[in-house]
Amino acid sequence: MKIFAEILATGDEIRTGALVDSNSAWIAERLEETGIQVSRHSCVGDDLQQLVAVFQEISRRSDLAVVTGGLGPTSDDLTAEAAALTLGRKTKLYPEALAAVEKFFAKRRRTMPESNTKQAMLPEGAAILDNPVGTAPGFSLQINACLFFFLPGVPWEMKKMCRISVLPAVQKLLGPQSGSIKTRTLSSFGLTESQAADALQDFTQEFPSIKLGFRALFPEIQIKLYLSGESRAELEVQEHRAVQWVRQKIGRTLISDSGASLQVTIGELLRKQQATLALAESCTGGLVAHWLTSQAGSSDYFLLSAVTYANNAKHQVLQVSRETLREHGAVSEAAALEMARGVQRLAASDYSLSITGIAGPSGGTSAKPVGTVCFGLAGPKTLTVRTKHFQFQNRKMNQTMSAAYSLNLLRELLLAAED
Amino acid sequence: MKIFAEILATGDEIRTGALVDSNSAWIAERLEETGIQVSRHSCVGDDLQQLVAVFQEISRRSDLAVVTGGLGPTSDDLTAEAAALTLGRKTKLYPEALAAVEKFFAKRRRTMPESNTKQAMLPEGAAILDNPVGTAPGFSLQINACLFFFLPGVPWEMKKMCRISVLPAVQKLLGPQSGSIKTRTLSSFGLTESQAADALQDFTQEFPSIKLGFRALFPEIQIKLYLSGESRAELEVQEHRAVQWVRQKIGRTLISDSGASLQVTIGELLRKQQATLALAESCTGGLVAHWLTSQAGSSDYFLLSAVTYANNAKHQVLQVSRETLREHGAVSEAAALEMARGVQRLAASDYSLSITGIAGPSGGTSAKPVGTVCFGLAGPKTLTVRTKHFQFQNRKMNQTMSAAYSLNLLRELLLAAED
Repeated sequence: MKIFAEILATGDEIRTGALVDSNSAWIAERLEETGIQVSRHSCVGDDLQQLVAVFQEISRRSDLAVVTGGLGPTSDDLTAEAAALTLGRKTKLYPEALAAVEKFFAKRRRTMPESNTKQAMLPEGAAILDNPVGTAPGFSLQINACLFFFLPGVPWEMKKMCRISVLPAVQKLLGPQSGSIKTRTLSSFGLTESQAADALQDFTQEFPSIKLGFRALFPEIQIKLYLSGESRAELEVQEHRAVQWVRQKIGRTLISDSGASLQVTIGELLRKQQATLALAESCTGGLVAHWLTSQAGSSDYFLLSAVTYANNAKHQVLQVSRETLREHGAVSEAAALEMARGVQRLAASDYSLSITGIAGPSGGTSAKPVGTVCFGLAGPKTLTVRTKHFQFQNRKMNQTMSAAYSLNLLRELLLAAED
Repeated sequence: MKIFAEILATGDEIRTGALVDSNSAWIAERLEETGIQVSRHSCVGDDLQQLVAVFQEISRRSDLAVVTGGLGPTSDDLTAEAAALTLGRKTKLYPEALAAVEKFFAKRRRTMPESNTKQAMLPEGAAILDNPVGTAPGFSLQINACLFFFLPGVPWEMKKMCRISVLPAVQKLLGPQSGSIKTRTLSSFGLTESQAADALQDFTQEFPSIKLGFRALFPEIQIKLYLSGESRAELEVQEHRAVQWVRQKIGRTLISDSGASLQVTIGELLRKQQATLALAESCTGGLVAHWLTSQAGSSDYFLLSAVTYANNAKHQVLQVSRETLREHGAVSEAAALEMARGVQRLAASDYSLSITGIAGPSGGTSAKPVGTVCFGLAGPKTLTVRTKHFQFQNRKMNQTMSAAYSLNLLRELLLAAED
């Protein structure tokens, strides 16, 4: 039996956009992983009528609902009252819930403010959900045909309670079938979303039981396989076949068959080859270094980025000759080569990358328009250079694409080294 | 007349939680700023029936709706078809929309894949919304009593189109009253959200007609003044008084009274003082350089960042002495001082900043736990050093806070230079 679930985030902070709701995505991912189909997310503010209305709607549409927020001690925390009202019931004091709140304060040697008593006032017929990391107890409640789980909005409290209360209950509801649904993510670079779609246009014919999806994480494109099958075993056979099929269709534009980003893939390749990397960045302004050093443990392979924004810095730090800068300019293949060579020497790295270009909005010329970027790539035995003309007319996109393009050049060289 | 709006995010990647929906919060904030009440957010997947159902519901509840996603060229992009179906209409090819898509590719010297033709198939009766930064044209359409705006899910395309199409249309709907509503944003660094709230606790008493809000943009806190008044003139008097009052309460923790970020403020101060900056980054891994160079024109003041991740690089590039690294370690005030002095000399800059620390998750010791960061700051006549122990136990937060803290040190020095 298929179970349909909905997720509801409550609170004026989310409704007005002061706060981005990341809870709902987290809950959706957990539910989908267990094989529940999440059909809808909603958000309403701290408004009794709105809450009652949306509770009623969900209770008629779905089998399961996870609600976050509105369980605090303040006057704008209305979830319990609204849930009771939806059923034409009252809230009442649950002594065991009050004991839990008191225990929370006692453990921290703090006296419980009177206002927190409110957190133990729950709808008649509610089942209490323990909150080991906060003051707000959650509760579950059947409304019409739908089982509601009410959780706090504080992310770590919500997540903890989901893991210890909601997901186990869901597993029970699902019985043996749980685990026959899975999402597999692959990542690619070098194709637009529509080029990827064209390359994989026969997929649905080949794999009618697998739903295909695309997600643009500029400049990468993620390819998502939504799998479902009678059994886990059958599903894994399908998954393996589908991944191989996609790999064969899009070839080397496939960065990772597990959805890893360019910078993570580069890190894995460098670590595997016990190789080191240094960068000479101009128009990317440190973005490539930032991407690489966002990964814990990147000091295993990343040594240095010389973000030489000024021409003088290119000369002083990387020994790019004044003549090259004068004759060819900082945005030139000659400069890119000297930058790559210079930083490789300086850091004594196995590989080095250089990026010098015109990110815009100003600084372009007819010969070198905005979006012109030169790349240098030095390996143990090779030294290559490329020039690209990106058409975004957008500084941020030019910088992001230049950073990704440079890492992809290195990726291809590292893959070639493995062949 | 009060206008009620809803926001709908579409797409399986959001429905399944693969992607956190940050678009809806951004749109909600823009609408609330103009005085529209956002009553609900929803999200459904790439499912024709679900889309039609939610379009119908919204069209009966609200005056205005902004929908994101599902305008792409692929088979799972169903928004236009669903909008047409909701009205019992068909989609048809809009030649001017097709021309816009073709123009997008032509401008980039790329041939348009056949699949992109689909993006010009819009519901009968739709009004096209220009998309200057992507292939997907948006459209607006009246469904029952509700005016729907359909935008792409790609954030920068959505934001651009909101600014040039949706918000102006909304202003028109609101008529004269829109002039008497305004949101003023101030930014601060160095206070937590609750410290800021405490410092401004008398605000509502002082300015009963102004709603006060806070938004944590880690590590900055934005202070939002939601103003409304009979006339624009009255409103501006109130606004001026309120900004002065806030400034007087939170003093130098106020970065900008127009909501500018630390990096933008630094850029303005350096440009005004015609001063230059160089960086020596270790644990921030290029993040400070990336922030600064995200600003167009930063080459006026930013010369160099030596992202010296490896100890050898600190020595080779910045002449940090091997003895210092051996005796005190790379995370030490001695190393921070030599890094700041070294990069100032290398780039011949007026100011320099150095950041060296332990971002974690590993690499901590009892003497230097994760979150220990040393900062060096060199000015024309000054050289100072600071050590901080950040408590986040989170690599990304340690890097972000370290980058912001270093810029704030420089900001205070630059402000002192002005006094």
